[in-house]
Amino acid sequence: DAAVLLLSHVDYRTGVLRDMAAVTELAHAHGALVVWDLCHSVGALPVELSRAGADFAVGCTYKYLNAGPGAPAFTYAARRHHAHARQPLSGWHGHARPFDFTEEYEPAAGVSRFLSGSQPLIAAAALEASLELWRRVDLGQVRAKSLALTDLFLELTAEAGLECATPVEHARRGSQVSLRHPDGYPMVQALIARGVVGDFRAPDILRFGFAPLYLRYVDVYDAATALVEVVASGEWRDPRFARRAQVT
Amino acid sequence: DAAVLLLSHVDYRTGVLRDMAAVTELAHAHGALVVWDLCHSVGALPVELSRAGADFAVGCTYKYLNAGPGAPAFTYAARRHHAHARQPLSGWHGHARPFDFTEEYEPAAGVSRFLSGSQPLIAAAALEASLELWRRVDLGQVRAKSLALTDLFLELTAEAGLECATPVEHARRGSQVSLRHPDGYPMVQALIARGVVGDFRAPDILRFGFAPLYLRYVDVYDAATALVEVVASGEWRDPRFARRAQVT
Repeated sequence: DAAVLLLSHVDYRTGVLRDMAAVTELAHAHGALVVWDLCHSVGALPVELSRAGADFAVGCTYKYLNAGPGAPAFTYAARRHHAHARQPLSGWHGHARPFDFTEEYEPAAGVSRFLSGSQPLIAAAALEASLELWRRVDLGQVRAKSLALTDLFLELTAEAGLECATPVEHARRGSQVSLRHPDGYPMVQALIARGVVGDFRAPDILRFGFAPLYLRYVDVYDAATALVEVVASGEWRDPRFARRAQVT
Repeated sequence: DAAVLLLSHVDYRTGVLRDMAAVTELAHAHGALVVWDLCHSVGALPVELSRAGADFAVGCTYKYLNAGPGAPAFTYAARRHHAHARQPLSGWHGHARPFDFTEEYEPAAGVSRFLSGSQPLIAAAALEASLELWRRVDLGQVRAKSLALTDLFLELTAEAGLECATPVEHARRGSQVSLRHPDGYPMVQALIARGVVGDFRAPDILRFGFAPLYLRYVDVYDAATALVEVVASGEWRDPRFARRAQVT
């Protein structure tokens, strides 16, 4: 009896890629709408919202789209929902006639009703520069390189002996590799000290993201080698790596 | 039987400055909380939220604080409300332990619970540069210059013969002057064509903001002279000034 299903297209922990078309169809068959969270798929692989029949989607632009730290997020609504969807964060710029300053709120026609208040123009300028680049990118090529990079990392880190949380199957893998170990936190800290910046996601995940646009195979080789060494040598046991920072 | 009173400290149309302490006391006497909108007062005059006993406040930083177009907004909550206030736009950064990734939402202690998602760092960097400057500013001096600038503008534009919507009384005036005329829209457009950028607020307000930090008396003299000339000469009747732009 769910009205709405909210799902991450790629799970932030495990890196599992969900079958958007199949899940959307199943949800619709049960009378539920679907909101897809694209944070870990946009810019990493082709996303076909309208082909999948998705209802709504949200996503960020500061990860794979590389629009800068904390760059503006986005929302998507299928055209069939535009006329009646109510944006709960209604604001000035989503008004039908923002400069009439009427007492009553009247949402704009179409997708414009999803706008809210004043736009962060400086942040939007950085986003625009990023999107200008993405306009010339072939997402099929991005996806192919992403899979090659994560394949290579999976292969090279196998000898570290950590449990792998990310599917080996291409169709079920995003652009990240997540490895599991109860001492994942100090292991990631030891890697950061070597210049390889992954992150730790509680309770036990070492997470590595792969940005195909500029990450090279040699970078992956170096990172994997560092991880194998950090685990094998036990250098992560140094007490300074156990100290919890605010950001993990 | 109102639970909450939401008021602009300075009205965006008329420029009327409200007596924050008196209004807050009156609202409290009737059992209502007060949320103050500071968009047109912060950076323009001293704002004493805790002396006035205010409950909550919101404001922008892109007007008088000059932090750039669409710079981050802010919120204020009196300390007595921190422990029980619920932030309806709850998000990752307002969580008590954001990196524990728990299933349940637990708001942070204190004012941090009002944070929501990832911060727009590029926009925040511009805001930080602006606040660095404001740290060295005496708001009493800002207020004195603001009143002198608006006094001068009121005096010089009196001969234009437009109705004035802004109080002459200092204690009731923000840092803007609003004049009324049914043909205000083309008048503002004609002024913009002369390089004096005010704005039009429906149905009949010509609005002029005064940023005391860098606006000079000679700028005010030039702007007022231009307005008097635009009205007296009837140059605003040129049909190109009647064309409605998206932003007024």
